[in-house]
Amino acid sequence: MNIILLRKNDFIDPDTVVLKGRRKEHILNVLKGKKGEDLFCGLVNGSMGPGRITAIDLSMVKLKVTLEQEPPPALPLTLVLALPRPKMLKRILESSTALGVKKIFLINAWRVEKSYWQSPVLRDENIDKILSLGLEQAKDTVMPELFKKKLFTPFVKQELKTISKDSMCITAHPKAEIPCPGNITCRTTLVLGPEGGFIDREIETLETIGFQSVNLGRRILRTETAVPVIISRLFSTAITSP
Amino acid sequence: MNIILLRKNDFIDPDTVVLKGRRKEHILNVLKGKKGEDLFCGLVNGSMGPGRITAIDLSMVKLKVTLEQEPPPALPLTLVLALPRPKMLKRILESSTALGVKKIFLINAWRVEKSYWQSPVLRDENIDKILSLGLEQAKDTVMPELFKKKLFTPFVKQELKTISKDSMCITAHPKAEIPCPGNITCRTTLVLGPEGGFIDREIETLETIGFQSVNLGRRILRTETAVPVIISRLFSTAITSP
Repeated sequence: MNIILLRKNDFIDPDTVVLKGRRKEHILNVLKGKKGEDLFCGLVNGSMGPGRITAIDLSMVKLKVTLEQEPPPALPLTLVLALPRPKMLKRILESSTALGVKKIFLINAWRVEKSYWQSPVLRDENIDKILSLGLEQAKDTVMPELFKKKLFTPFVKQELKTISKDSMCITAHPKAEIPCPGNITCRTTLVLGPEGGFIDREIETLETIGFQSVNLGRRILRTETAVPVIISRLFSTAITSP
Repeated sequence: MNIILLRKNDFIDPDTVVLKGRRKEHILNVLKGKKGEDLFCGLVNGSMGPGRITAIDLSMVKLKVTLEQEPPPALPLTLVLALPRPKMLKRILESSTALGVKKIFLINAWRVEKSYWQSPVLRDENIDKILSLGLEQAKDTVMPELFKKKLFTPFVKQELKTISKDSMCITAHPKAEIPCPGNITCRTTLVLGPEGGFIDREIETLETIGFQSVNLGRRILRTETAVPVIISRLFSTAITSP
């Protein structure tokens, strides 16, 4: 927890929050917070800055916050991901959020196990927890938007075209011959297939609406490795900007 | 399993292997292998190529292999990692192996929990399993070398200097001001700290022997995300080479 994420209902007046639950436990037990100390805080989808502990006991932590810093810049990337297995999904969502992705679509594909769609991980409150972990890790406040799309073809044909308008459109695909571009700055929509890859017809459907298939070299990577590798490659300068 | 890894003792004659255990189960249950079919195989630390199933039943799979292809090129990277928590270690070792890292040092540091050194994950047979998973994922055969160094200062002062000779020496460090270099081809030794980072004295010790501290931007990443991000950034061309 490199930032204490605040929600609007934590505020008891314009610059004072009272925290209970997980954040209070973390401040007490991990950060060993003491009265008078500053902790780095941020309002979800808002600004960030120090929060001074004005009261602390086993039941609550009270902080006086001065939120005047902007969150770090977002990546100009929309991530479209064939739904991975739940354990992997968690890690991919957390790392993508930490890296600054702000728009994520989880989609169906031929090789997506149908049971993954029933996973409790996909419940809104669980998604919110996972995305919060990513923000807490990266000292960011801007919650990604996440959309679930259970039908591949209607989504690609009817929605993805609009979503990806005016962006570079690429599909990471092991069989592609063109290498994935690097160090770009433009708005990008990146589609990633399931374990085992998209089937040919899905690749064709994506190509029809302008998605170029690109490869990542001859090594086949798990999606959870491929996502940070591709993001780092695409936005190498943006990621390391101070 | 994108490649069936073979060991020397699987061979019953120069081009025939008999597999039991995990690989046999995988061929039977996941790949649904049938007599006459080719599976992609590779000898650990040797060459790769098709293996034709000549006999298959519930107890064993026999393959006639033609191993004439070279494994993919290795990355010119030595990874020196403050020992992470066991769960994270597994994922980092697997992804680093999949990305082509061939030399890994696990070292101690002030903020490494001492109990991590007792983890069963560190037993040779478990390390071998994890590294094998990385090779199986990436269609590679060359097993990384892994070394465990439980004393920070003697290792850095007496060994790391020799290990890192004639290579670019960098430490990924959130407090550094110089950004991490990108798209290089030279031999590189990369040091990564524990959760919470190296303490100042450790960074100074590394600097004394020529390690430049570099940062990855203002977002703080978990080590398991930082490793693929840095590797992809350092070797963006090498990684995507066909």
